This record gives sequence, structure tokens and C-alpha cells, in this order.
Amino acid sequence: MSEQKVSSRRATLAEIALDASVSMSTVSKVLNGRSGVSDPVRARIEGLLHSSGYSRRGAEQSQARLLELVFQNIDSEWSLAIIRGVDRVAREHGMSVVLTESGDRHSPAADWIEGVLKRRPLGVILVFSDLSADHKRRLRTRDIPFVVVDPAGDPAPDVPSIGSANWAGGLMATRHLLELGHRRIGVITGPEDMMCSRARVSGYRAALDEVGIPIDPALVVPGTFHYSDGVEGGERLLRAADRPTAIFAGNDLQAFGVYEAARNLGLSVPDDVSIVGYDDIPSARWVGPALTTVRQPLAEMAEQATRLVLALRDDPGRGAARLDLATSLVVRGSTAPPAAQKPLR
Amino acid sequence: MSEQKVSSRRATLAEIALDASVSMSTVSKVLNGRSGVSDPVRARIEGLLHSSGYSRRGAEQSQARLLELVFQNIDSEWSLAIIRGVDRVAREHGMSVVLTESGDRHSPAADWIEGVLKRRPLGVILVFSDLSADHKRRLRTRDIPFVVVDPAGDPAPDVPSIGSANWAGGLMATRHLLELGHRRIGVITGPEDMMCSRARVSGYRAALDEVGIPIDPALVVPGTFHYSDGVEGGERLLRAADRPTAIFAGNDLQAFGVYEAARNLGLSVPDDVSIVGYDDIPSARWVGPALTTVRQPLAEMAEQATRLVLALRDDPGRGAARLDLATSLVVRGSTAPPAAQKPLR
Repeated sequence: MSEQKVSSRRATLAEIALDASVSMSTVSKVLNGRSGVSDPVRARIEGLLHSSGYSRRGAEQSQARLLELVFQNIDSEWSLAIIRGVDRVAREHGMSVVLTESGDRHSPAADWIEGVLKRRPLGVILVFSDLSADHKRRLRTRDIPFVVVDPAGDPAPDVPSIGSANWAGGLMATRHLLELGHRRIGVITGPEDMMCSRARVSGYRAALDEVGIPIDPALVVPGTFHYSDGVEGGERLLRAADRPTAIFAGNDLQAFGVYEAARNLGLSVPDDVSIVGYDDIPSARWVGPALTTVRQPLAEMAEQATRLVLALRDDPGRGAARLDLATSLVVRGSTAPPAAQKPLR
Repeated sequence: MSEQKVSSRRATLAEIALDASVSMSTVSKVLNGRSGVSDPVRARIEGLLHSSGYSRRGAEQSQARLLELVFQNIDSEWSLAIIRGVDRVAREHGMSVVLTESGDRHSPAADWIEGVLKRRPLGVILVFSDLSADHKRRLRTRDIPFVVVDPAGDPAPDVPSIGSANWAGGLMATRHLLELGHRRIGVITGPEDMMCSRARVSGYRAALDEVGIPIDPALVVPGTFHYSDGVEGGERLLRAADRPTAIFAGNDLQAFGVYEAARNLGLSVPDDVSIVGYDDIPSARWVGPALTTVRQPLAEMAEQATRLVLALRDDPGRGAARLDLATSLVVRGSTAPPAAQKPLR
């Protein structure tokens, strides 16, 4: 940084201190995320820093090059693919990844931001998580960009986010079953209030529409993305007199539940019932038979989110963006043409 | 840090500069992991820093509180449990975790240490990975402790490490099958050169010894911890005229392979063959039937490693330690008493 820039940055801070009627050291505390400043004063200084266009970009050279990755809950077979994707891009750029788990909350705890401002990361990637308005403002003030990896399909409008094509996934899963010759196809849904879940079911309907098969409400079983949905919903569907010859599950865990339902009823997969899942978590390869499923490109979504956060750093004017990556069908052993219906055990 | 401490630290650095016939700025470069110092000079200064007992502990207050977590390969269902364990303890102490994947190497790349010295973590936790002698020296010089999470059971003697009780795990898996009434029990092993694998097989032998069953070499099939070992080794065992009624697999992936072998031969689990795995990775719950397996307490191992690294920080004199955590048997649906032998499909 040139001498001139340093002195102009100092002048800006002095003006802000004057405007806010506080000392330079108070401004500096706010800037560096230190404690000892009341909330109203902190908010006033944040506002002035922001409107003055103050940037501490020059400081980053001496810092460790860190990216923050924030999970709501790391305890899912999904998380690993996302961590790998972020890590891959971070390494390309000589950066390291700092992990935070926000726990049951939908956004990180209040003290998270203090740590972030101390660590001064080059960007923040949030998984299935959102930031409070205050956290957003404090990151924006310091030109720390943030992007959401959002497999649920419910992005906040003012936050750039990366998702995947859920409707197309549902369409492609159902088309696959139709092409094998299935005509009665059950579906187990995810939660009504999640966009990703509604989009998948909507894709299922569209595929049936394409070939002129009317929707039978008895074949649509509501669920919440849990294993037990598959066990209970699967048994309900498979005990029906005119049971479906195939079931499209809202996610892989539900599909594993349908396997269990089929075993309980003495039905074999795929001979008596074909099953398609959604996600392609690692376990999908190990269940017997291996699961045909719609692959969410989680690692690629995480990579894209990381690249976007770095691009936003270079060009903050890019504004909020939403990008949906393509899903794909992975055909394994759980789907086959329908056979004649055999009686239950 | 008091004025006095600062000046005594400065004096130490000045003496080291004098001893090494270099400038203070060169010493400072080495101390802060910056480039522009030749390898021999760096080594000389490292040695002097170390022998002078120089500690930069005082500097940490102003830094972000980071722990480094280094994986050889993050792409395993194991990794998540380890990340969670480290993260849990880190959060208890208000610390954040920085992830690094060393890739195919057995130790992190040469440039990793530069990043670490820049980030100045409070400690380093290595998973299935070792450090070069140079990296060890540079961390020790700066009082950055390191601990290895070592499920393979091959710790370097001079590095504190946390493992688990592999022999007891093999014993307990085999005893479980014996208690169910099995007398012909096959085993698929991991690599000969991994201690954890040899300990598990040794536990299997000890359990058979206890009840006076001689080892039948035809029932011991070598493997390399891969799924395909289970498919091929399982078929070999199950095609034999006097086939085993139970198989103890060296890890869960091999056990999933044995499921596939059983399916291929028209044998049902556990009616025709009981199967026990090792690890309890997430997929073990989702295969049908759910897998009885020996649980490696990976999250607890990671927690212990993290606590040990923090303890070493407070008391560097603790020296190298090895701690093996207990394994436990998780009984699920893949084991049952032996039934009469039915002919193959």
C-alpha cells in the first residue's frame, strides 16, 4: 500500500471518529471487532464506515489467507462433499478453510462474528444457513463477501447463492421409471415448506403429465426427509391392493426406508418394486442393491460458491446472484422394468 | 506481556542473530515463517531458537485462536466424525478449526508449514498422517504442539497419538459370533503391514483359542480394506463345501462386499450367513439388514487428541503419549444363530 493511501485511509477514520463523536481508538475497536463499544455506538460507526466506502483491503497481505465455512449442522453425509469442494478451490488459491458449526440455529451464534472479524477471512461460505441483518452489515462494512450453498432452494433475495436443479431432478427420476415401463409410480415427498421438495414433486408430476398419466393422490405420501418416512410411507404404498411398481423417494434416506419396507413385506428390489432416491450420499453405493438416485452435485456447488465469493471480493459490484447447477441421474441396481405383481408374504 | 519480558525476548533474538552471524531481520523472518532465507541458515537459526528455549507464546493473545486439522485424505466416511470431534472441543475453548488435506502424501506438502507458521495455530492435529523431521522441528521451535489421530495403530515413537483398541475389537466381534453358536467363522483381513489389521485378526484368533477351536487357514482370506475384498473373498468362503456360517470382515466396506457376495449366491443375511464389520461408518445403518459392527470411537478419538494438544500447550514437558480408546460392539440385524446349511442357488 502506498504512503498516500495510508494517509488517506487515516484521514477517513479521523473524519468518522469526528462524525460519530468518538475517539479514533473507538473506531479502531469497531473496525477490528474488539469489545468495549456499546451497541448503539458500534452501529453508528458501522454505518459511517459503510457510507464512507472505507475499505481495509490493504491490510490483508499480512494476514493468513482464510475462508470461513459455516455449517448449520455438520452431521450429515452431505457435509463432506461440501467441505471437499470448498477446500479444493481454497487450496488452488493458497487459502485455508476455517470451519464453524452453527448448531440448531438457522444462523451462527452472536459471538461468531467477533471471531470472524478477528480472523479477517477473505470470504464466508454458508451452508444451509443465513446471516442476521446485523452480521450481514458488519461483513459488508469490511468488504467480506458471503455466499450461501443452498440445496433447499430457499435463498434470501439479497444474498448470492448456489443451488441445484430440483425440478429437473424430479422430472428425470420419474422419466427414468416411465421409460422402464412403470405406470403406477408412488412418490414420498419432503416437507411441504421446502422449495427443493416442492420442486422435486412438481418434476414428478410434469413427467407423468408428459405421457398423459393422471396424478393419483393415493400415490403421493407426505414425508419430512427422514428414514422413517420411507419405512412407513413405503409400507403404506406397498400394502395397497393396486400397489405401485416403483417409488420415487424425496431423498436417499427415505429410499433406504423403502428398502426396509420392501424387506418387511417380502418384496424384492428391483424385481417387485423399483426405487429411485435423491442426493447420492455415499451410502447409496453400499445398500443392496445399490441405489439408483438423482445426484446433487454438492462438491461442485461448494466449488462454485467458493469461486463466487472470491469473484465478489474482486468485484463487489456484482450484486446478488443465484445459480442452480445441473443434477444428473445415477442408474444403479434398484430400478428395472416392472414384473407381474406377486402376492405379499 | 510485561515490558521486562519483551526486552528479555528481544535480547534473546539479538544473541541468536549474533550467534548465527545474521541480522535480526533474518531471525525474525525465520521466526515468522517468511521466505528469503536459505535452507542452511534457516536450519541454523531454528536450532538456536530451539536450544535457547525461545518462546513466542506472548504473541498469541492478539491472534485468532486457531487449531490446525490435517487429513491425509478427507474423502472417507470416517472424516466427518473426526472433524466433528475436533470442532466440538475447539468450540468449547473458543477456537476455530483450519482444515488441510495433504493428499496422497503421507505428510503435508512442503509449503504447508509456511501457511501454518503464518497462521500461528495453538496446536496441530494430524489424521493418519505424519510430519517430516523438519516440520516437527519447526513446530517445536515455536512451541506449537501436535498430536496424531491414528486409527491404523502405527504411531511414530516421538509423537503423541490417539488410537483405539483393535485387538479387543477383533476379540469382541468373534466372541459375539461364538456366543450365537457359530463354530466355522471366516475372517477377511486388512493389509498385513497395518498394525490395526494384524491386531484385529489376532483378536479373532484369541477368541477361537478361548473356546478351543483350532484356526483353519482356509477360513482366513487376505484383503486390503476394500469393498472388492468382501465380494471376492466372501464368494470364495461361501462357495466352499464346508462354508462358514459367519464372516468377520476387517472393515465395514469389506462387510458390504460380503453382503453382495451373499446376494450373488442367493444366500440371505443373517439366515444363511452372519456378518460382522468393523468401524461403524454411517452406511452401516442403511444396508439391509443393518450391519453388526465394531465401533471405532472416532469422534471421541478426535476429541481426546484435541484435548491432548491443548494440554501439551500448557505443559510441553508431558512428552510423547499413546492412548487407545475402547471399541464397542454394535449389534444390529446382520448376525443371528446359525441355521442348517442350505444348498447354493
